Amino acid sequence: MHDIRLVGFDGDDTLWRSEDYYRAAEKRYEEIIGRYIDLHDAGTLRHLLEVERRNLKVFGYGVKGMTLSMIEAAIELTEARISARDLQQVVDIGRDTLAHPVELLDGIRDAVEAVAARWQVVLVTKGDLFHQEDKIARSGLADLFPRIEIVSEKDPPTYARVLAEFGIAPEQFVMVGNSLRSDIEPVVRLGGWGVHIPYALTWAHEADHGLAEAHPRVRTVASAAELPEAITRIAAGTAA
Amino acid sequence: MHDIRLVGFDGDDTLWRSEDYYRAAEKRYEEIIGRYIDLHDAGTLRHLLEVERRNLKVFGYGVKGMTLSMIEAAIELTEARISARDLQQVVDIGRDTLAHPVELLDGIRDAVEAVAARWQVVLVTKGDLFHQEDKIARSGLADLFPRIEIVSEKDPPTYARVLAEFGIAPEQFVMVGNSLRSDIEPVVRLGGWGVHIPYALTWAHEADHGLAEAHPRVRTVASAAELPEAITRIAAGTAA
Repeated sequence: MHDIRLVGFDGDDTLWRSEDYYRAAEKRYEEIIGRYIDLHDAGTLRHLLEVERRNLKVFGYGVKGMTLSMIEAAIELTEARISARDLQQVVDIGRDTLAHPVELLDGIRDAVEAVAARWQVVLVTKGDLFHQEDKIARSGLADLFPRIEIVSEKDPPTYARVLAEFGIAPEQFVMVGNSLRSDIEPVVRLGGWGVHIPYALTWAHEADHGLAEAHPRVRTVASAAELPEAITRIAAGTAA
Repeated sequence: MHDIRLVGFDGDDTLWRSEDYYRAAEKRYEEIIGRYIDLHDAGTLRHLLEVERRNLKVFGYGVKGMTLSMIEAAIELTEARISARDLQQVVDIGRDTLAHPVELLDGIRDAVEAVAARWQVVLVTKGDLFHQEDKIARSGLADLFPRIEIVSEKDPPTYARVLAEFGIAPEQFVMVGNSLRSDIEPVVRLGGWGVHIPYALTWAHEADHGLAEAHPRVRTVASAAELPEAITRIAAGTAA
């Protein structure tokens, strides 16, 4: 038996589709760059990822930071030949990505309802405060999450601070998410539990993690429908 | 006697200098625009404010949103004649504004310490999550604020949510800040108290508020040194 008191849910690509919109944004970005250079030689998206990574410390995560990095990367890659009109199109990519519809993943509402009926739940999501709040409002899930934590980095100190605010020990906490790096590894490092629900797409930056396969405090589920059962088994102390 | 239980502090231009950096950013923006059009006729900054306002709903507050609006405004105002190199300089304005040093306002550390010795305190600040957290870390005030609320909008529902998390009634809450619109008016509307500490500069958008002069639950102080006394007088029920 484990005394589970709080279940955290990630937002992007756990509750709702997100990475697809970033990928679509990258595709539009590549199209614009293709007007200036031969895409076959350019490594356009590898270059964009480099620019995003070097800017993370100043711009943080989220669409606005991505858009500023795209503008910078486009100027760099075209050696400043890109026109102002095309750069406006890059700004528009950012605007459209911020305004994309919020599509819940299959079965997620029922799964969160079932979990929330038994445990206290919290949404722990990373990125632009404004964009995340807007997505929560538009998701129709706000009523299920009385507490929402929007954080700038998902690392052990951040989760420790959230748990301290709830007065919960790490071993009483289960985090549900699609990213081993951001949702599962830091929580497990603190002594908590993770339920990994893989998403088809993972941002290159998030694929980078240091968790061994088959960790005893990590479960993997194939769909939202399996979530309540996975958490019930953790609480019951049933083997994975 | 009033049972004050919690004192909220605004961050930008209450604890540390902020608007000066935005104004410096606008000056650099104007300089770049001046390479393309006659600034005397242009109303460059009025136009920028318009673009920022129409983008608020998508970009939210903060430096990254300002930078994206500057890029868009520059392209619009120059009818797309602006060069990619000059647009990179606009991106650099954003980067430099995000990285500006955090300068505490005169006497603020002593004032917060004196208030925190007697009441629970919370920092309630608006803007980019990432930038605000970075500023709090660099301000040296993080030790004085065990609880920090970074919000996307400072309106009555937001303050109501924060107060609910603390289990505090509005009449037990005093908010300290430089903006009547964001810090004082919404709290007073809920039934709480405000201590207004004006700052030399106010963003045009923030100057817009609907509070009558001399509201009975609002005090105005001229400097941080007067803050503890002002809150003590509110708690004691002494007339303003």
